[in-house]
Amino acid sequence: MSAPVVLTALTQAERDDFLPSSVQANLDSLSLRQVPLLLPLADPASWPKQIVDSKAEALLCAWGCPPLPSDLPVGGPGQLRYVAYLAGSVRKLVPRQLIEKGLQVTNWGSSVSRTISECGLLLILSAMRRSGHWNVAMHRDGAWKDGMKTVTQSLFCRSIGLHGFGAIAQELIPLLRPFGVSISAFSPSVPDAVFQKYGVTRSTSLENLFSNHDIIVELAPYTEKNHHIVTEKLLRSIRPGGAFINIGRGAVVDEAALARVAKDRIDDLQIGLDVYETEPLPKDSPLRGLSNIALLPHIAGPTKDRRQDTASFAIENLQSFLQGKTLQSLITLDVYDRST
Amino acid sequence: MSAPVVLTALTQAERDDFLPSSVQANLDSLSLRQVPLLLPLADPASWPKQIVDSKAEALLCAWGCPPLPSDLPVGGPGQLRYVAYLAGSVRKLVPRQLIEKGLQVTNWGSSVSRTISECGLLLILSAMRRSGHWNVAMHRDGAWKDGMKTVTQSLFCRSIGLHGFGAIAQELIPLLRPFGVSISAFSPSVPDAVFQKYGVTRSTSLENLFSNHDIIVELAPYTEKNHHIVTEKLLRSIRPGGAFINIGRGAVVDEAALARVAKDRIDDLQIGLDVYETEPLPKDSPLRGLSNIALLPHIAGPTKDRRQDTASFAIENLQSFLQGKTLQSLITLDVYDRST
Repeated sequence: MSAPVVLTALTQAERDDFLPSSVQANLDSLSLRQVPLLLPLADPASWPKQIVDSKAEALLCAWGCPPLPSDLPVGGPGQLRYVAYLAGSVRKLVPRQLIEKGLQVTNWGSSVSRTISECGLLLILSAMRRSGHWNVAMHRDGAWKDGMKTVTQSLFCRSIGLHGFGAIAQELIPLLRPFGVSISAFSPSVPDAVFQKYGVTRSTSLENLFSNHDIIVELAPYTEKNHHIVTEKLLRSIRPGGAFINIGRGAVVDEAALARVAKDRIDDLQIGLDVYETEPLPKDSPLRGLSNIALLPHIAGPTKDRRQDTASFAIENLQSFLQGKTLQSLITLDVYDRST
Repeated sequence: MSAPVVLTALTQAERDDFLPSSVQANLDSLSLRQVPLLLPLADPASWPKQIVDSKAEALLCAWGCPPLPSDLPVGGPGQLRYVAYLAGSVRKLVPRQLIEKGLQVTNWGSSVSRTISECGLLLILSAMRRSGHWNVAMHRDGAWKDGMKTVTQSLFCRSIGLHGFGAIAQELIPLLRPFGVSISAFSPSVPDAVFQKYGVTRSTSLENLFSNHDIIVELAPYTEKNHHIVTEKLLRSIRPGGAFINIGRGAVVDEAALARVAKDRIDDLQIGLDVYETEPLPKDSPLRGLSNIALLPHIAGPTKDRRQDTASFAIENLQSFLQGKTLQSLITLDVYDRST
């Protein structure tokens, strides 16, 4: 019996980032026959036929991959059974019908969490030192500090409030620990055992979380219920000298209110943002130009140099697929329907 | 026998920052009679007489304190024997003659090291994400990322080369460890045991340090020998995609060369600076305006909220002074002559 086929459908840039030689070697070690397909296709119309003709049972692909047609034959002998997607949202790639028919799909799962948490730490440290302001003022306005009047703050000994306590929050905790911080989280769905494991205090309400900690880190998933759950009132309740960091989802926050609060509290609230309600962030967004906001263009994760982590994660899943084991970060219909 | 007098000569702003109530309570617990003197003095000419009249044996002071005259009587009964300086360089405050006559002087010592190392981590993370660039471009130029073309890097799994291995470098190490980095240092004067204690590899030359690590952190002390020891050749030898961070002393680096190298390597070298050859940084410095440099105005340490750490350190020293024990971070004549 010949080895199952995996179709690796990637652009050259994706191959370079996701499959450096050491990671490619791990892929090569699997009992799979690789059929490489370089994207973009010279003839886009040939796409579904290429999958069928290759008799691929698995597909390894990323952002550059064309969508799968909803009538693609899946699940039978020599037909596609598994899509290892190297990025996040699979909705543009995989129609719901294919998952209903039993196609297994995984995404980058928690393999990107640590780089996102790293970006969270960057924004926290930036907020404490006001480095967003200093970079703009020093590069464009010839600025320098004003002796003892210049306010600088440290992360050491601070209290941190996490809104959300999933994989990214859990990866953030070891990065914060060396600073001697106390950490609380608000996440009703996470059991006590997880709080105990990480030494994190459960916050009993969002009101408590926002008003009783120095630094609030927004990490709640975007759901209908969470739309604008971070209200103007919550934002205004953050302590003087406090900070609000968003590395989760933009629309969890009432962004117009955030801009108003930022403007009103220009000297006593620091803000760090990587995500926004509308992306790309509109050129005329009121968030641009405010000296108490550090802005990043949704680059938390994964960084270019760590895209290989998502491929390593996919290779583990391909191994499990070959052995008939359960896959990690499987996109169930429930997960599919909740994703954005 | 009445308790020895400590003269606390501070401005109101210094009192607020250095002596919050919890720290003042620790000072109050010592067997010392405190004579508070609010600066600036209404009559500056009364300064040395105020010290003499108070019969202070110890002086607790910071940046706002006028210089001690070189003919101040020290060391005798009811005369000044110890200056606990809450800041760094004592050269403007204390003439060398007084130390020759036996006056004990301490400064903030290593109590500020952790906030400086925190700033180092901020600049490292900024360099990896190019956040200096993004803050300027997003706030002033309406920028957004350009998909997969946007280069982002992570600190995870990087190699770090420290130039200097004193207190700040040692405090930086626990902040870096969660990122799974490998760390080397070049510091011929530091014994092997210290390298072993911190799990750091000794780099045998500056050439090796600069050319064989991803991120170079400049922490060497400023001495005549170290003036411009970081040459254009060393800076050009840093790996493509690498970073150079300076949280030590500006004049250790040939700054004109740094500006040239930064300009030439605008896309493949990231730089983070808190210190400069001339401070305030001149408005027309060629470092300003380069997108691969994150700039801060010498605010690494101590942050305003952690100035209390330096007072806690001074209070420990006052306790030792009362008990006739050796003081920490004593400014010997040798240290005095080497300081800037």
